[in-house]
Amino acid sequence: MVTKAHPPTLRELIKHLSKLPGLGEKSASRIAMHLLRAPAADAEALAQAILRLKREIHTCPRCFHFTDGDLCAICADPARRTGEICVVETTADLLALEESGAFRGLYHVLQGALAPLDGVGPDDIRIRELLERLEREEVREVILATNPTSEGEATASYLMKLLEQRPVRVTRIAYGIPMGGDLKYIDKVTLERALRGRQQVH
Amino acid sequence: MVTKAHPPTLRELIKHLSKLPGLGEKSASRIAMHLLRAPAADAEALAQAILRLKREIHTCPRCFHFTDGDLCAICADPARRTGEICVVETTADLLALEESGAFRGLYHVLQGALAPLDGVGPDDIRIRELLERLEREEVREVILATNPTSEGEATASYLMKLLEQRPVRVTRIAYGIPMGGDLKYIDKVTLERALRGRQQVH
Repeated sequence: MVTKAHPPTLRELIKHLSKLPGLGEKSASRIAMHLLRAPAADAEALAQAILRLKREIHTCPRCFHFTDGDLCAICADPARRTGEICVVETTADLLALEESGAFRGLYHVLQGALAPLDGVGPDDIRIRELLERLEREEVREVILATNPTSEGEATASYLMKLLEQRPVRVTRIAYGIPMGGDLKYIDKVTLERALRGRQQVH
Repeated sequence: MVTKAHPPTLRELIKHLSKLPGLGEKSASRIAMHLLRAPAADAEALAQAILRLKREIHTCPRCFHFTDGDLCAICADPARRTGEICVVETTADLLALEESGAFRGLYHVLQGALAPLDGVGPDDIRIRELLERLEREEVREVILATNPTSEGEATASYLMKLLEQRPVRVTRIAYGIPMGGDLKYIDKVTLERALRGRQQVH
C-alpha cells in the first residue's frame, strides 16, 4: 500500500511500475525501493534503455518484425532460407519460435489477427504486405503459425482461402498435446485437434 | 531466452530489467514487449519517473527517511507525536510500519544495521545522528524496531547499551508468532522468542 509517508517521486514511480504486466503494487514497490538504493548510473541506464527502445525501434519494411536498423536481424541474415515464410500474429510469437531454433526461414508478422467483433478486418493487419511479398520474392512455402484462438483460427482460414489459387505450398503448424502434457488434464478442443491431426506411423 | 532475432535495443532493455528484484528473464522480456507496444507517452513517463526518483530524492535531515522536499512527509506532519522515535534499519521497514498505521510518532532510519563481519560499525550507520536528536528534541521513548536477524539484534543490543544511562524510555517491538501463523510450522527461534515474550493476561 502506498502511504503518505512515500515521497511523491517514489509514489509516482510505483504507480507507473504497477501498470506493467505481472507486477502488482507489492512487486512495483520492491523494484522502486531497489532503484532508490541502486547506484544512480544503473537506474539511469534502465531509464535510457526504455527511452532508446521507443525512439530507435521500428518495424522491418519486409517482415514487420521489430528492428533498430534497416532490415531486421532475420531478414538481413544471409544464412536464412528465403523460400519459406512463417506467418505469425506478433513479434512475441516470432521470438518464441526463434528461441526454439526450429525454423531457419523468414517470417511475416501480421501485427494482429482478424477480430471482426473488435473491428479488426483484413486491411488492419499486414495481409496485403504478405501478398506483395509473394509477388516479389521467390516463396515456396507459407507456414501459417497463428495462435489456436478464435482470432488466430479466423486469420488462418482467411489466409488459406486467399492463397488457395497461388502457386505456393501453404502449411499450418501442428496443434495437439504439448510435450510433457497429461491427456487427462488436456481440454477437449486440444484433444480433438490432436486426434484430427494424427499421423500414420507405419 | 534472448536470441539474435531480438533487436539490440530490446535485448539491452531486457538485460537491465532482469537485474531488478523479482524479475527473471521471462518476466523482463514480457515487460519489454509490453513497453514496445505501449504508447510512447507511457514508456516515456516510466523512464522519466525513474530519472526523477534518482535526481530529486534525498534523505530527510532529521530522520533519514527519503524525501523530495526539505523535511520528509512524516517529520513535516504536525499531527505526529514528536516525543516518540521508532528506530528502523531501512526506509522499506519504515514504510511497512506506516502501512500498518499503528504508529503515530516519528522515525529514525539507521540506513543499515551493525555487521562487524562486513565491516559495518557504529559510525557507518546513523547512530550518532540519533544521539544528537535525543539531545536536541524532547524524546520520551525510543522504540527499537530493528529486524530479528543477527545484524538487527546486534544493532538493538548496541543501542540498548548506549541509551541505558539516558533519561529516555527504551522499548523494543514484540517478536513472536505472526498472525495467521501455525505453531507447528514456526521455526524454533521464533517459538523461543514468543515464549520469552509471553505476557500475563490475568
